[in-house]
Amino acid sequence: MADDELGPLAARVPEVLRGSAAYHVPQPPRVIAKLDANELPFGLPPELRAQLQAALAEVALERYPDPRAARLRALIASQLGVSGDQLVFGNGSDELIAALCAAFAGPILYPVPSFVYYKLAAIARGLPQVEVPLSPRFDLDEPALLRAIETHRPSVVFLALPNNPTGTLWRPGFALELAARHRDTVIVSDEAYVAYSGVTNLPHLAAHPNLVVMRTLSKIGMAGLRVGFTISSPAIVNVLEKVRPPYNLSSLDQRAAELLVEHAATWCAARAAEIVAERGHLAAALTARGLDVFPSEANLLLVRFPDAQATWQHLAAAGIVVRSFGSVGPLASCLRITVGTPTENAALLGALPT
Amino acid sequence: MADDELGPLAARVPEVLRGSAAYHVPQPPRVIAKLDANELPFGLPPELRAQLQAALAEVALERYPDPRAARLRALIASQLGVSGDQLVFGNGSDELIAALCAAFAGPILYPVPSFVYYKLAAIARGLPQVEVPLSPRFDLDEPALLRAIETHRPSVVFLALPNNPTGTLWRPGFALELAARHRDTVIVSDEAYVAYSGVTNLPHLAAHPNLVVMRTLSKIGMAGLRVGFTISSPAIVNVLEKVRPPYNLSSLDQRAAELLVEHAATWCAARAAEIVAERGHLAAALTARGLDVFPSEANLLLVRFPDAQATWQHLAAAGIVVRSFGSVGPLASCLRITVGTPTENAALLGALPT
Repeated sequence: MADDELGPLAARVPEVLRGSAAYHVPQPPRVIAKLDANELPFGLPPELRAQLQAALAEVALERYPDPRAARLRALIASQLGVSGDQLVFGNGSDELIAALCAAFAGPILYPVPSFVYYKLAAIARGLPQVEVPLSPRFDLDEPALLRAIETHRPSVVFLALPNNPTGTLWRPGFALELAARHRDTVIVSDEAYVAYSGVTNLPHLAAHPNLVVMRTLSKIGMAGLRVGFTISSPAIVNVLEKVRPPYNLSSLDQRAAELLVEHAATWCAARAAEIVAERGHLAAALTARGLDVFPSEANLLLVRFPDAQATWQHLAAAGIVVRSFGSVGPLASCLRITVGTPTENAALLGALPT
Repeated sequence: MADDELGPLAARVPEVLRGSAAYHVPQPPRVIAKLDANELPFGLPPELRAQLQAALAEVALERYPDPRAARLRALIASQLGVSGDQLVFGNGSDELIAALCAAFAGPILYPVPSFVYYKLAAIARGLPQVEVPLSPRFDLDEPALLRAIETHRPSVVFLALPNNPTGTLWRPGFALELAARHRDTVIVSDEAYVAYSGVTNLPHLAAHPNLVVMRTLSKIGMAGLRVGFTISSPAIVNVLEKVRPPYNLSSLDQRAAELLVEHAATWCAARAAEIVAERGHLAAALTARGLDVFPSEANLLLVRFPDAQATWQHLAAAGIVVRSFGSVGPLASCLRITVGTPTENAALLGALPT
């Protein structure tokens, strides 16, 4: 659909939106291993599923959700050892990234390649995007990023810790140094994959009023729920709450998250540990095939292939879906493979062209 | 929390956000009748609840939701007699209003008083707000609105049909006249309460490529789900999809909505008809008490009281929660009362000061 079909409305669309395409989520064909979205591959254990079914049956769907998500808030605050008024909930990290852009509207800075939604949110809000290229090995170019901050004075800096889609874990202290040096900039430590890295800037929040730690339930077995949250100073919470839609977490999602987060310390943590062990096995097996596997602290492996697009097609034909990044840009020769179950990973290895 | 606690970050907050307060949803005390949020007061019938419980138990929570909401899309498109590619789903109308502001960024025009989120979304996006006052009886001042369009050339006009919080049904053809006259302006016919008014501009979409009809499941028994949608030309869909977060409808919400929308034609429609009948009885009873009841085509009644704030307190003390609009502005002397069950409405009438 070309923008010119908009007729006289076309002039109303902000310049930054005109060239951009909608975020495309490819619909896979017949799938025997879905390794494209960094989901945790394990379903709920039967006893937890039964509890969840009973809990959801009690939800009064005819009533609006609790706009404060009070029970979930208390639970997560207690688990993290923070105060409930340091939390802002979002419909996934996506909504929180958009809220940060709206609340602190100015140039938005992020390394590339990184999580694609930083760019999309800046575009949607009509804000300038400051992109700092990673090194060829996807390490963070700290001096270049510092220079970009001095030049563009961004209002928000997004740092994924570890980075998606590369899996790279940059030096976590760098975010803190930025926060200390640029007090008029919001520094976001996006810790979506903390379950797999074990690295967090959470203990440093008190020292840095401009630091925001962002988390999500999506990578620890609850991607179907749309629940993310930020942890920050209450002053930042206050601004984010002004742009958060009041009823952004559905009643079903709140209730399910309450139950599952309560069990996260045991169930999810054990499952995440399994994936971390599998990550090591899969990386070793891919390396043994002569492939270039980038170091990863997330539940994914970025792998360079002689012909990434052909490999993607070959795997897809075998029912193995991984993530491709198209034929241009720094990731053109790479595929991102979510670490799956032992069975899924074996299927992947079996299906790879030799 | 004052903005000055933000320290050096304060300058990063857009001007329009500095004075605004977060949308406040009052938390009622002990409640015997919740008549403040225009919810449908009936829970699901037991057989539908059992079906829902079984359906939700099958949802794979560890997987991301379907970004297209394909099954729900097909179902709603079929019920409305439109094509699936005319629909955009949002996390409630709130998100769709915000998406319309982001996609067609320019001055946002709406009558006041009307749905408060039009203003909040414009503020969050940093857009100018053009407010056109209603008449003292909350009728639409068509000439004033036309003049405001000529003067401010808004990119989006929101018209609630019927209006919330007044219940007033303006002339629906006016939206069509605006759409025909101002092809470079998106005209939104917000039909959140269509189940109670029976009035829609849906049949006129084909004639007006700049017309958007907006609906929600919130007012027909599914407020706990966050599901709203727009219906428009595919060209408008294309732009909205660029700013819609891809996973904005949770898997649980999609599954629940599929099941309930399938039954909406029977279950919800019958319940809505009961509320319409109750609305007549309640309006007559309030009028018989000498109160000024505004004509309403929604599941609410706006009522003028000699001392609205005192009446609100009096009702709240009796466990009857209605909506107050504070002590300033055109609604200061009014309360908005959701039409409840016969029992709830009787409780309200019994608790009113004589």
